[in-house]
Amino acid sequence: MTGKRTWPPGETVSFSNYEARHFLWEVSDDGRVGTLTLNNPERKNPLTFESYAELRDLFLALKQASDIRAVVLTGAAGNFCSGGDVFDIIEPLTHMRMPELLAFTRMTGDVVRAMRKCPQQIIAAVDGICAGAGAILAMSSDLRLATPEAKTAFLFTRVGLAGADMGACGILPRIIGQGRAAELLYTGRFMSAGEGERWGFYNALHPQAELLGEAQALARAIADGPWFAHGMTKTMLNQEWAMGIDELIEAEAQAQAVCMATQDFRRAFEAFASKRQPVFAGN
Amino acid sequence: MTGKRTWPPGETVSFSNYEARHFLWEVSDDGRVGTLTLNNPERKNPLTFESYAELRDLFLALKQASDIRAVVLTGAAGNFCSGGDVFDIIEPLTHMRMPELLAFTRMTGDVVRAMRKCPQQIIAAVDGICAGAGAILAMSSDLRLATPEAKTAFLFTRVGLAGADMGACGILPRIIGQGRAAELLYTGRFMSAGEGERWGFYNALHPQAELLGEAQALARAIADGPWFAHGMTKTMLNQEWAMGIDELIEAEAQAQAVCMATQDFRRAFEAFASKRQPVFAGN
Amino acid sequence: MTGKRTWPPGETVSFSNYEARHFLWEVSDDGRVGTLTLNNPERKNPLTFESYAELRDLFLALKQASDIRAVVLTGAAGNFCSGGDVFDIIEPLTHMRMPELLAFTRMTGDVVRAMRKCPQQIIAAVDGICAGAGAILAMSSDLRLATPEAKTAFLFTRVGLAGADMGACGILPRIIGQGRAAELLYTGRFMSAGEGERWGFYNALHPQAELLGEAQALARAIADGPWFAHGMTKTMLNQEWAMGIDELIEAEAQAQAVCMATQDFRRAFEAFASKRQPVFAGN
Repeated sequence: MTGKRTWPPGETVSFSNYEARHFLWEVSDDGRVGTLTLNNPERKNPLTFESYAELRDLFLALKQASDIRAVVLTGAAGNFCSGGDVFDIIEPLTHMRMPELLAFTRMTGDVVRAMRKCPQQIIAAVDGICAGAGAILAMSSDLRLATPEAKTAFLFTRVGLAGADMGACGILPRIIGQGRAAELLYTGRFMSAGEGERWGFYNALHPQAELLGEAQALARAIADGPWFAHGMTKTMLNQEWAMGIDELIEAEAQAQAVCMATQDFRRAFEAFASKRQPVFAGN
Repeated sequence: MTGKRTWPPGETVSFSNYEARHFLWEVSDDGRVGTLTLNNPERKNPLTFESYAELRDLFLALKQASDIRAVVLTGAAGNFCSGGDVFDIIEPLTHMRMPELLAFTRMTGDVVRAMRKCPQQIIAAVDGICAGAGAILAMSSDLRLATPEAKTAFLFTRVGLAGADMGACGILPRIIGQGRAAELLYTGRFMSAGEGERWGFYNALHPQAELLGEAQALARAIADGPWFAHGMTKTMLNQEWAMGIDELIEAEAQAQAVCMATQDFRRAFEAFASKRQPVFAGN
Repeated sequence: MTGKRTWPPGETVSFSNYEARHFLWEVSDDGRVGTLTLNNPERKNPLTFESYAELRDLFLALKQASDIRAVVLTGAAGNFCSGGDVFDIIEPLTHMRMPELLAFTRMTGDVVRAMRKCPQQIIAAVDGICAGAGAILAMSSDLRLATPEAKTAFLFTRVGLAGADMGACGILPRIIGQGRAAELLYTGRFMSAGEGERWGFYNALHPQAELLGEAQALARAIADGPWFAHGMTKTMLNQEWAMGIDELIEAEAQAQAVCMATQDFRRAFEAFASKRQPVFAGN
């Protein structure tokens, strides 16, 4: 244990030199912003068993990151992600028995869990096709930007499956409302970028040439903010879905009191008082 | 028990020849799409004690349907439903004692329960007046289409009652958000069709001449889809409201693994691989 | 106990002559509508430890009001509320130890609790700056009106804190959806009035000259309605967030049966039958 590190507890890991095997991973010079690019552009960046597993492992490991504070999640060459590949994933699944099937659906669910549980904010930058498990990855991010050309479909019904995939029946209604979520999940139709913005799925639309820059600028703004407190915001945005009002108010009284006990809170006040930009240390 | 039927378990019933007593009931030639028309046009299709009970019984019985996969719910002659009739329902209620009152509110609540619990998708096709219990019937459907002339009001406050009717305080906010639901429930004002579409209550608006056809086409598209999986989607859209993220992800891992174990999943893959339309058998 | 009063039980209090110490409080001639004006216009109506405490105490005491049925919450001179004052509140907090911090966050949470638990409907009338704890006061109201000039920010992140303040991570997503709430809480940016209306935060926008009048007219319309039933609507809108569909339908069956047992229900029917305006007595 070094004398300087106070958080997170336990062994920390730098992800600046993480060598991704099934997608691209780049980190800003200061180590704060990671950009994860799904990268199989000929097939519109589908997921495979291997890339699912690496996504799960990476987002899980980011809990111990010493550097990364925000992640941009995007796809190569004008598409976000075409979902689980029909021949690489769907076909093998049609031959599996129940324990294997459940192991698969639990693994894909664990990708969503890891995205929701890591303290970093994940900003999806969506262009072109965003379908199936790709739409789930966008849904499971903290914020979502898109181009006007983004086409987003929860198309599980098209392959004979339920819309209940990786949390979609529970998470999507909380983003766009129960009626619109039901339509997308029963029909599998594409939601246009304009609908997505109007319904609150996308936070904003940007032209293709600007999308990645805008997403990285947003990630940068968040990464330079009070990241310990941001992590608490994420925790509470996740865990108050099934709480009553009394309980969630008490939960936030405790959560915010914890944040008020940090030095970052004092740093922010002192910067404000002396008209400087605050510099946060995460403790 | 025949050798062919595998689902649902127990005695199944065909609803192709169901003779409705308090509304109209028509079924498509192949038995898959039922159209339920509230039909007392002089009074804008109000509900009565008897029609409430028959709605409850029909939607409850549809669990055992051997044929119906989707239902269009509409009203005759340019109106959807004017709600509980003031003289047939409200007046008798003002004379009842508590056990009778509770028996009534539980019966109306059971209509909503039966609509949410049947495996069929219910598509409300709303024109003209959609008020009181009529607005509840629209709200309790899975999808909602309307004409630009649709006028929808949760007007319980106008008769001295709470907005807490048949689940409205819990269900409506999940469709249009807490602030808009509060306004409709406290004021009893009419929501225009445009507002309804903008707020996510209506999935789309269509001209009067096209409404029923559009609703039946949507019902048809759903009915020709993977109806076992659709039933699972409906179950999960219903039951994840009060779950935490961890729990709902596990719930969907199990639900989707069940769907992956169906032959319909294999049929969909094989149809895709050979560029055919899949034909689903619900098993 | 007088022979006439039936509700609320216990000692009742008139708030017509309540003398507010840390804001303005005015009551309509008939005692039904109170207008609470935050009033420190030079500093855009910030909150102080003392005004937080008085807000909590007033909204808590309103449960026993013999007169007030609706409250308009607004700010003086073109601004709603600038939130907790940086030097009066933030600076002292940076010196406190944990038990004091938790006592503060619990007190501010109790303001939200008291607003949600009082039977009166609270209509926020928002112009100009609506920031930090000011945005929380708007969020915690039952209905929200604003001018096109209203600027609303949950800016806790700007002072190094979490968005988890006074219930925001749980309440705001239920009003505007999870994605838009996340953006406001992570970035602390201002939501324009137009965004607020489009997203369902504001029920309507009105020009500055008309805002207070519109808010008071809305409060008046609600106050002249069935206020016992309105109180039940508020209770149920609050407490069904973490209920399953079965449970919330049963809860409303009971709640509405209670309302049907009131004389106000009979009064509303009789007024309707004789084409009069109903006069409600709250029993």
